[in-house]
Amino acid sequence: MRIKRFFNKRLRSVRLPFHPRAYSDDIPASGAWSIDKGVGNRNFLKVVDGQPFVLESGETLEHIEMAYETWGELSEKSDNAVLVCHALTGDSHAYGDIEEGHPTPGWWNGLIGPGCALDTEKYFIVCVNVLGGCQGSTGPASINPKTGKQFGPDFPVITIRDIVRCQRRVADHLGIDKWNCVIGGSMGGMQVLEWGVMFPDRVSSLAPLATTLRASAQQIAWSAIGRTSLSLDPRFRGGNYYRAAPGDGPTAGLAIARSLAQTTYRSEEVYSKRFGRHLVDPRSIYGLWDRFQVESYLDYHGEKLARRFDANSYLVLNRAMDLHDLERDRGSLKNALERIARVPVITLSISSDALYPAYQQEELKEAINQAGGDCEYHMIDSPDGHDGFLLAVKEIGVHLESFLSKVSTK
Amino acid sequence: MRIKRFFNKRLRSVRLPFHPRAYSDDIPASGAWSIDKGVGNRNFLKVVDGQPFVLESGETLEHIEMAYETWGELSEKSDNAVLVCHALTGDSHAYGDIEEGHPTPGWWNGLIGPGCALDTEKYFIVCVNVLGGCQGSTGPASINPKTGKQFGPDFPVITIRDIVRCQRRVADHLGIDKWNCVIGGSMGGMQVLEWGVMFPDRVSSLAPLATTLRASAQQIAWSAIGRTSLSLDPRFRGGNYYRAAPGDGPTAGLAIARSLAQTTYRSEEVYSKRFGRHLVDPRSIYGLWDRFQVESYLDYHGEKLARRFDANSYLVLNRAMDLHDLERDRGSLKNALERIARVPVITLSISSDALYPAYQQEELKEAINQAGGDCEYHMIDSPDGHDGFLLAVKEIGVHLESFLSKVSTK
Repeated sequence: MRIKRFFNKRLRSVRLPFHPRAYSDDIPASGAWSIDKGVGNRNFLKVVDGQPFVLESGETLEHIEMAYETWGELSEKSDNAVLVCHALTGDSHAYGDIEEGHPTPGWWNGLIGPGCALDTEKYFIVCVNVLGGCQGSTGPASINPKTGKQFGPDFPVITIRDIVRCQRRVADHLGIDKWNCVIGGSMGGMQVLEWGVMFPDRVSSLAPLATTLRASAQQIAWSAIGRTSLSLDPRFRGGNYYRAAPGDGPTAGLAIARSLAQTTYRSEEVYSKRFGRHLVDPRSIYGLWDRFQVESYLDYHGEKLARRFDANSYLVLNRAMDLHDLERDRGSLKNALERIARVPVITLSISSDALYPAYQQEELKEAINQAGGDCEYHMIDSPDGHDGFLLAVKEIGVHLESFLSKVSTK
Repeated sequence: MRIKRFFNKRLRSVRLPFHPRAYSDDIPASGAWSIDKGVGNRNFLKVVDGQPFVLESGETLEHIEMAYETWGELSEKSDNAVLVCHALTGDSHAYGDIEEGHPTPGWWNGLIGPGCALDTEKYFIVCVNVLGGCQGSTGPASINPKTGKQFGPDFPVITIRDIVRCQRRVADHLGIDKWNCVIGGSMGGMQVLEWGVMFPDRVSSLAPLATTLRASAQQIAWSAIGRTSLSLDPRFRGGNYYRAAPGDGPTAGLAIARSLAQTTYRSEEVYSKRFGRHLVDPRSIYGLWDRFQVESYLDYHGEKLARRFDANSYLVLNRAMDLHDLERDRGSLKNALERIARVPVITLSISSDALYPAYQQEELKEAINQAGGDCEYHMIDSPDGHDGFLLAVKEIGVHLESFLSKVSTK
């Protein structure tokens, strides 16, 4: 009963064990675990062993907490667990309704749920807010134990590998030796790939969607422009804005960065069909700041993110994406992919994705298969651009369900 | 001799006649003309008739000056004149070397020049800095005669139609009743199309390249994000930055806007090949603001533009592009295109152009031909994205030369 209640809790947070030595992909799990129940469905799980957690950069974090949610129940053999990895501005609320602490419904509703491809009646599904995030896990807005104040710009640069090592601690805690599948799109897909390289014995299958082996120059360009725009906001104050009065933070800068990103996430076709050249006020056209509806839409998305997301987290996670490169410090891409190649992989492209173009997923498939792996590839026909990985849940579900059924019978 | 010397002058400026009545596409040319020689090759041509120039918005400008350059000589029949229309951050220096007042060589060198498609031995070529610009023509940095100070944010919103009406005054002044061809890419192509709609009897052919019948929602989005980013720079001061100390203007904001635009101008392929994931300093990777080479490239282009371009001009001209819509206030697109359809048209796409995608030029061709016109269309195979219209001069030249030879014999 206690276990069942435990697993039915939607959102928990893990304080990770301090890592007792220099950075290595294959860290041992150690330390003592504890769980704190938070507000509403929020629970905080902490692991402390008195040594700092060493990041890939060599920087350390004394305290790490991980917020996560679960749905369904872990089987007796612990072989039905699926890890869902969220994208840049996502959080652990991959599935469910709007509820306390979650102003938006689950970002992968339709793919996750009873009867869905990620069937909550069948799988035990886990989603962890990433390290560096701002939805319950340790990030720049967390208290720096060295100063008693929020980290702000002192929060170290993290990598996708650091994020995955934190997720592994959650797996250890939950008693999951091997994920049935690790799945995610975009930045989530980067985590999926790193799971395959870093911990190939802890996964039975991988589903990296709309993602890439390495951030491309154009992806870095968009990220960098967004980050610099944000930093131009005078209220950013070099990242030291936490003690600013309400509304006096860098919301305008974060909103601009988001507007830019939002445009790369969608497609020319969708913008044309949805907004065309319609004005907000057809009588106001000749003012320099009179607005078209597409501008109003961008403002809306920018302001919406600025209300729920921390600007320093935005910077740190964008940088983590820029640094994503499966090959880095591994001698060769082949070395990395030979580890991924041990398990079946599915990758999907969104036909209209200009940010993570289809050639990147085709390259991923080819590279894995050349390394001796078994990677299947499908193109999802969707006009929604990169956001198709969040929106085309029905089409993704068809391929995923078929893939998982084969994995399950192996 | 005097005429020859006159036409050999590279850069001149026209002060336009005040327009004596409310806005109309088909304004009469009137007023007295005068020429001032400026610094170096710069000449200022002024036309004043004591009435304000009425813009499409209904706003007025008391004084208008136009800077332009010419190459080659006007034939006795005045039938060899070609108007070259520049894009957003271009200027009248379409052809030539770096020289006083021109820190960069001609932006269409290779397409214009002796033996080129726009052969300066054959054609009399004219390029006018646009109204709203900052390279000699009246714009936000010009003195507002009402206040004796620079316009700044008081400069009115202008449209492509206003720009074209100013160019027509230059044509009147030069004694060019009919352009052999009006040619331009991007914002230049918008001007070409408006020439065809507003003054169909003043053109023998049109070459709108890598452009569109109307700014699309995505094009407006990119423009708006750039403009908002610029305005976020605290040194923008709402546009009132002209009296700031050197270096205290909104250069950072303008640089960001340019970086963003630059990314939309090029292509994923070019960025990947040129920059890949190379770091500026391979030893500096884990700092939040450590840079990849692509970031350094964007900084360079941003700062370069910020040194030579006025931020308020950037805003005004971007807005003019957003407002570009051949159909506006003309009842229907068909009404507009039936005027363009009176003369032969050539349009070209750049295969990798994501900002002005090929479908827009295909649509242009279809629409003109459906309106009874004769529009030929070619795709230029180039990896350079939208900037291909500036870079693929050889390929553009082949099509243009063939097109012009047919026009000339008609």
